[in-house]
Amino acid sequence: MASQSRGGDRGDRSWISERIVQVIKKYVLAPLKAEKIPYFELLARTKDNVYIDELTNIIRLGSKKIRRKLSDIDEAKTFMKTVLVAAIIYEAIKYNKYPTIRDVYYDAKHTIPGTNIDTVDTQAESDSIIEDLEVMLGASREEMGLQTDVKCKVVGLMRVRSGRDIIDCSRQGEGGAYSPPTNVDRLEFLDVDAEYVLVVEKDAVFNTLNMERYWEKNKCILITAGGQPDRPARRLVRRLNEEFNLPIYVLTDADPYGFYIYSVYRIGSITLSHESVRLACPKARFIGVAVSDIYEYNLPKNVIIKAKDADIKRATELKTYPWFKSPAWQRELDLFLQRKEKAEIEAFSSKSLGFLEEKYLPEKIRSGHFIV
Amino acid sequence: MASQSRGGDRGDRSWISERIVQVIKKYVLAPLKAEKIPYFELLARTKDNVYIDELTNIIRLGSKKIRRKLSDIDEAKTFMKTVLVAAIIYEAIKYNKYPTIRDVYYDAKHTIPGTNIDTVDTQAESDSIIEDLEVMLGASREEMGLQTDVKCKVVGLMRVRSGRDIIDCSRQGEGGAYSPPTNVDRLEFLDVDAEYVLVVEKDAVFNTLNMERYWEKNKCILITAGGQPDRPARRLVRRLNEEFNLPIYVLTDADPYGFYIYSVYRIGSITLSHESVRLACPKARFIGVAVSDIYEYNLPKNVIIKAKDADIKRATELKTYPWFKSPAWQRELDLFLQRKEKAEIEAFSSKSLGFLEEKYLPEKIRSGHFIV
Repeated sequence: MASQSRGGDRGDRSWISERIVQVIKKYVLAPLKAEKIPYFELLARTKDNVYIDELTNIIRLGSKKIRRKLSDIDEAKTFMKTVLVAAIIYEAIKYNKYPTIRDVYYDAKHTIPGTNIDTVDTQAESDSIIEDLEVMLGASREEMGLQTDVKCKVVGLMRVRSGRDIIDCSRQGEGGAYSPPTNVDRLEFLDVDAEYVLVVEKDAVFNTLNMERYWEKNKCILITAGGQPDRPARRLVRRLNEEFNLPIYVLTDADPYGFYIYSVYRIGSITLSHESVRLACPKARFIGVAVSDIYEYNLPKNVIIKAKDADIKRATELKTYPWFKSPAWQRELDLFLQRKEKAEIEAFSSKSLGFLEEKYLPEKIRSGHFIV
Repeated sequence: MASQSRGGDRGDRSWISERIVQVIKKYVLAPLKAEKIPYFELLARTKDNVYIDELTNIIRLGSKKIRRKLSDIDEAKTFMKTVLVAAIIYEAIKYNKYPTIRDVYYDAKHTIPGTNIDTVDTQAESDSIIEDLEVMLGASREEMGLQTDVKCKVVGLMRVRSGRDIIDCSRQGEGGAYSPPTNVDRLEFLDVDAEYVLVVEKDAVFNTLNMERYWEKNKCILITAGGQPDRPARRLVRRLNEEFNLPIYVLTDADPYGFYIYSVYRIGSITLSHESVRLACPKARFIGVAVSDIYEYNLPKNVIIKAKDADIKRATELKTYPWFKSPAWQRELDLFLQRKEKAEIEAFSSKSLGFLEEKYLPEKIRSGHFIV
């Protein structure tokens, strides 16, 4: 899909308009001409239609299809909303607009004349329709040109071409970084001289590593998305692994929330299973902080945090997920459930400032001691 | 202060080490030699020691001083923590480290031998000590080299030198942006060709304006901090206004939270009053979305949101703040309290995609219709 969107200034999106026209012709106009009742047919984005692809090891959408019929009283509104949102995306492309997904919600929102009924009540509704359209059109919302928050930042040994500009991610100054656009498929990698990618959960830790020029000393690329990864961060990580075969190491806190963040980079998430094929990076590895690191690195008692009930509950859930079924992860999660203790990345500073970047990370990478 | 920190690679921080030594000599060593009980004396960072400087129109710290005595049972621990955190900052500078404020917390945290007492219990404590040290040393935590999350992004007509690199904020590609470092005082502005700075509350709206190259068409600089502004965003806005006399326009949602964000850029905040002199930008103007815009631009009823009790409470508070006492703001807040309605920036998309950047913003800037 990526290559199709490359081309002229800011990307030629006409292929998406064409697909919208095809979909509307097929599902709306053709049936109406034939005096049949229209319906949309698309893959169900539901929990029961999700599976782990054993070949690629990512969450994928199954083959179960659903129909959104105009004749069904419950589905007629969804049918109408799909046409409405498709029309807005068509219009955005036509007029060279890049609305936010919240703009789409507001643009779609109208009171149906002669009623008290709004076309769309909440943004969750229009967001869900946008995801339906991703499936139906085979185009990501980023390729459609829709904008969202981007928390992703990058620094390190790579240069990219974006539009008419070349961005050197190793020339972002003292502690500055490049914030990529929503659609990172539009980036053309020029030079990628890194030996690996270090994905850092926390923005502030990324800033410390950047100030200390970790990426230069260790010939790598640093990426953060400040917590739960956004789609641009996930797609960028995936592309760097796929196109340059770069190892991906994910650094998070030693807690179930951190482990979950790692799994989103690696496997994807159930709600975005239709996009896993673009966003998941099954070769991503967990560098730490592992639960076992707390004891192996002998962290002092008073920087170890007592797990909360929510942590215990989350870890118990994670244990049942297929992608945490490996012996290494089961050991980690068992250790967590037994000790009921967690720790943050920054806890290494109790040993000495710089312990993380001078000792922990190089040791882990040298020894290849990752949890997968 | 800024100029003092410029110099060698990543900035010479030795002037801060020297001040730490001076402070420790004066308040700890000298009294001990003279067999007197040591105390720290510093300006109180309390609500009752905050005033509006009528000349500069920003929140400032008053002259009330407090003493942290080693002999006072309540204050002895704070005295000890101050020495401890000062030592960590001294060490960070000595070893060329750039720890996060959370690293400082962990590095400071020890169990006092022979007791069950920890030196520091929560990060709030070490953060507060860092703020005390900002006052005592006359150096910002950014100048000390301490790292935090940076949500600030910039794009537009300016070039900056940072360390050995030059970053052209008009060459960040399609929808990309420059994410500045924590210490924006280290940036040297080379060319600033913009006619104004537009500060955008929302990251996604910033991305739309960026994709549509608003900054190029309108000869400006766009800045966002994705909601509540971080210190780098505030300092950058302040510097661009002060050093280039650029008008600053703040764009937020039409709700009390948005108005508050505007006021933080303009006046500062009570908790950071000691830093207002560096961070506040009293010439920042509120471009909108104003409450009156909801009705003047005739936003459709169904995109207007009913105010919550918390909004009403907040607006009632804002009305009493000296910096919302202008007739224009009082009218806005009265209108809000009377209609009890709010709206988001993206609500303009209900009129048409692109209404914000093609109609609303140019009209406002042309007419000079701001609320101050």
